[in-house]
Amino acid sequence: MTPEEFREYGKRVVDWIADYLASIESRPVRSQAKPGDVRSALPERPPEEGEPFEHVLADLDRAILPGVTHWQHPSFFAYFPANASGPAILGDLLSSGLGVQGMVWATSPACTELESLVVDWLAELLGLPQGFRTDSAGGGVIQDTASSASLVALLAALRRAGGEGRRRTVYVSSQTHSSLEKAGRIAGLAAGDVRAVNVDEHTLAMDPAHLDELIAADVADGAVPALVCATIGTTSTTAIDPVRRIGEVCRARGVWLHVDAAYAGVSAICPELRWINDGVAEYADSYVTNPHKWLLTNFDCSVLWLADRAPMIEALSILPEYLRNAASASGEVIDYRDWQIPLGRRFRALKLWSVIRWYGAEGLREHVHKGIALADEFAALVAADERFELRQDHPFGLVCFRPRWPGLSTADANAATLALLERLNDSGDLYLSHTKANGNVLLRMAIGAPATEREHVLAAWSAIRRELG
Amino acid sequence: MTPEEFREYGKRVVDWIADYLASIESRPVRSQAKPGDVRSALPERPPEEGEPFEHVLADLDRAILPGVTHWQHPSFFAYFPANASGPAILGDLLSSGLGVQGMVWATSPACTELESLVVDWLAELLGLPQGFRTDSAGGGVIQDTASSASLVALLAALRRAGGEGRRRTVYVSSQTHSSLEKAGRIAGLAAGDVRAVNVDEHTLAMDPAHLDELIAADVADGAVPALVCATIGTTSTTAIDPVRRIGEVCRARGVWLHVDAAYAGVSAICPELRWINDGVAEYADSYVTNPHKWLLTNFDCSVLWLADRAPMIEALSILPEYLRNAASASGEVIDYRDWQIPLGRRFRALKLWSVIRWYGAEGLREHVHKGIALADEFAALVAADERFELRQDHPFGLVCFRPRWPGLSTADANAATLALLERLNDSGDLYLSHTKANGNVLLRMAIGAPATEREHVLAAWSAIRRELG
Repeated sequence: MTPEEFREYGKRVVDWIADYLASIESRPVRSQAKPGDVRSALPERPPEEGEPFEHVLADLDRAILPGVTHWQHPSFFAYFPANASGPAILGDLLSSGLGVQGMVWATSPACTELESLVVDWLAELLGLPQGFRTDSAGGGVIQDTASSASLVALLAALRRAGGEGRRRTVYVSSQTHSSLEKAGRIAGLAAGDVRAVNVDEHTLAMDPAHLDELIAADVADGAVPALVCATIGTTSTTAIDPVRRIGEVCRARGVWLHVDAAYAGVSAICPELRWINDGVAEYADSYVTNPHKWLLTNFDCSVLWLADRAPMIEALSILPEYLRNAASASGEVIDYRDWQIPLGRRFRALKLWSVIRWYGAEGLREHVHKGIALADEFAALVAADERFELRQDHPFGLVCFRPRWPGLSTADANAATLALLERLNDSGDLYLSHTKANGNVLLRMAIGAPATEREHVLAAWSAIRRELG
Repeated sequence: MTPEEFREYGKRVVDWIADYLASIESRPVRSQAKPGDVRSALPERPPEEGEPFEHVLADLDRAILPGVTHWQHPSFFAYFPANASGPAILGDLLSSGLGVQGMVWATSPACTELESLVVDWLAELLGLPQGFRTDSAGGGVIQDTASSASLVALLAALRRAGGEGRRRTVYVSSQTHSSLEKAGRIAGLAAGDVRAVNVDEHTLAMDPAHLDELIAADVADGAVPALVCATIGTTSTTAIDPVRRIGEVCRARGVWLHVDAAYAGVSAICPELRWINDGVAEYADSYVTNPHKWLLTNFDCSVLWLADRAPMIEALSILPEYLRNAASASGEVIDYRDWQIPLGRRFRALKLWSVIRWYGAEGLREHVHKGIALADEFAALVAADERFELRQDHPFGLVCFRPRWPGLSTADANAATLALLERLNDSGDLYLSHTKANGNVLLRMAIGAPATEREHVLAAWSAIRRELG
């Protein structure tokens, strides 16, 4: 494709996306495709001859869109939001157009330096500690996901802990994201060595006293405790672990504290929410939050910061001859390949940079505020309806609730809640997901898509009440 | 940013990229930036108020481009190519615009089903075995990089091998990509347990007899051999390991055979190069190749196939409540989250699909043919000049060579070759990289950027001869 053809088709694709975004509300939120529908609508064999780009766009409408669940739909309330935005999409487009590979500084200095700059910007915007800045012993890096970031943190923690050949342990709670257990498996820990700390029955927050007991018992047993993961805003219910008290235990025991704030961390852009990071500056060895969830930056863009980058680099650096270069040898530059699992890397900083510049701190705060305000309003509606039970804590954009189902056993009530959920999602009018807390299935209403307005939240509440009958 | 603003700025970005690609030849290939140049050209602090998108584009020209090494430049001959192309960029743009998250089938069926389809298409185009198709016990998946793909293969291999708590071993050669050693470290193997098999001094291919000896000795020593990595087209010199003979050893010893064809694998799209995969159908448990290197699909797009997906899924699957859904429970669908390290995933299939449709099998073959033909022509020029020594084997687009430096010791000759390389790269006219084989520094001329024509290769050869003096 020549640059001139690219110019022509590129504009058609931009129009296609603008039209898609402008008309997204007319589509069912959750795809109504059945397994195999999309594939069977497309040719089973690749074309021998090239085809006009119009064919691709036509098949996009005909075969692909019916199989798409519209994460940017204003009535998408499932999981957590996966925000996209114009400036993010355009930053990503610039990255694709430049087609550079930032594995080391020398292979495209701008890719590394803009990344260091924007992760420092974001640290400042979120009020994160000076020690996370790239001009300190620590620094930040963009990863694909919090799963990968947590794996990198674990590998750094294992490096710092030492004790190779001995049993090494990691501490999470029942509410910690499954990616930590996955990271433990990947790093070769035995299943039982990712230890589950008790949580408070009501808040679902990790119990620091139990953490301390577990670590003491494991140490007495000859184990080497490597990492504790505290979560700010769990995936299930946005519970907040007591980072400061967990940090005190970690400090006393010499264990790495990793803070998973994948969803909620970006909300600290609002000064009144800075309290969520209490203890981070003093105790956190690593911290991850995902602009690709709630900060208007399309997937994938997860930022990991470390207070000390050295053990990570020791854990991950290998230098073959074909990557040696003068800049790396000088020690004056960052080579981000040693800050991640893969070697190659996209120029992801462009999209976060575009987003921060287009919206400014003001615009980003406004976006987060709006999600929280709508969640508060939704929660108040649920609380005011006696047929529903509201989970009280909802500091962010997620509201968990369930119908009371008077007279039903827990099992029957759970089945009825899941059936209600399926009916709602089948309607195509909105999309919710669910979780389980203390044995009860809860509906999860996660507000935060950029297109979501008050009317969509109110319409969702009407649909839920109507469907309950 | 509203859809209408996106329409406006999107077209400007498309124009910017078209202009960039059309004028790329006027820029120095390798960035001439010094450490800190890019960052110091940008504001140290994030903006409080939003800025017009024009400011982003202006800073792109002013501050970012001087720090970019132009991987799409026709005179970029370093490392391996990182092909981009119009349809790939547009496929990626569509992915960003849709903003879906394909972690499980249910979160966007099209994301999973188009991916299964295009990796099956690619398997067919490359003549890979039926057992790699997604309707078999195996299947294919798009990863970010071959590093991640090889890590996934290793985790599956460790799962199949069992022997937790015992010493487990992996077999590579001195020419294997460093990502395998990194994968071993990540998976918690001790450094010495990634074992180096001897290579043939001339071909640099792995010695299957030595592999068999090493495995036998390790087994006698109580170790559990988990994986052998054979490479088709090593990063250093594109050496080809004897896959069939290595496979015979693996079969006899019950060890997982992983084939790393990251760069060269896509060349099998040309029927006359199918021989490179001899033994893959019979013996390979996993196989990776990167369309983002030489197959016109912009980074990141690496395809991993497995002959049996079960041990990978056993190794990587964890199912929290909030991801449970009817489609997954039915067993009728693929949930690609269990085929990779991260949980979340982009709709990467769109770009590979766009590329295959726009170019067709014919166009893709033509692209690979062109790179090989230019490499052959370049190699003939080197061979004909007695001041240079050519590395004879160059089955793909990479040619390795060096000045003879009569009268210089090996150390002095190496230093002189590296100095020549720096002078060439400093000129901005072309960009080469280097490697070392049998103690000698070699220049690597990797041909395969879509914009590279005969004139660029001839100009590079002139520059090299001129600079040698």
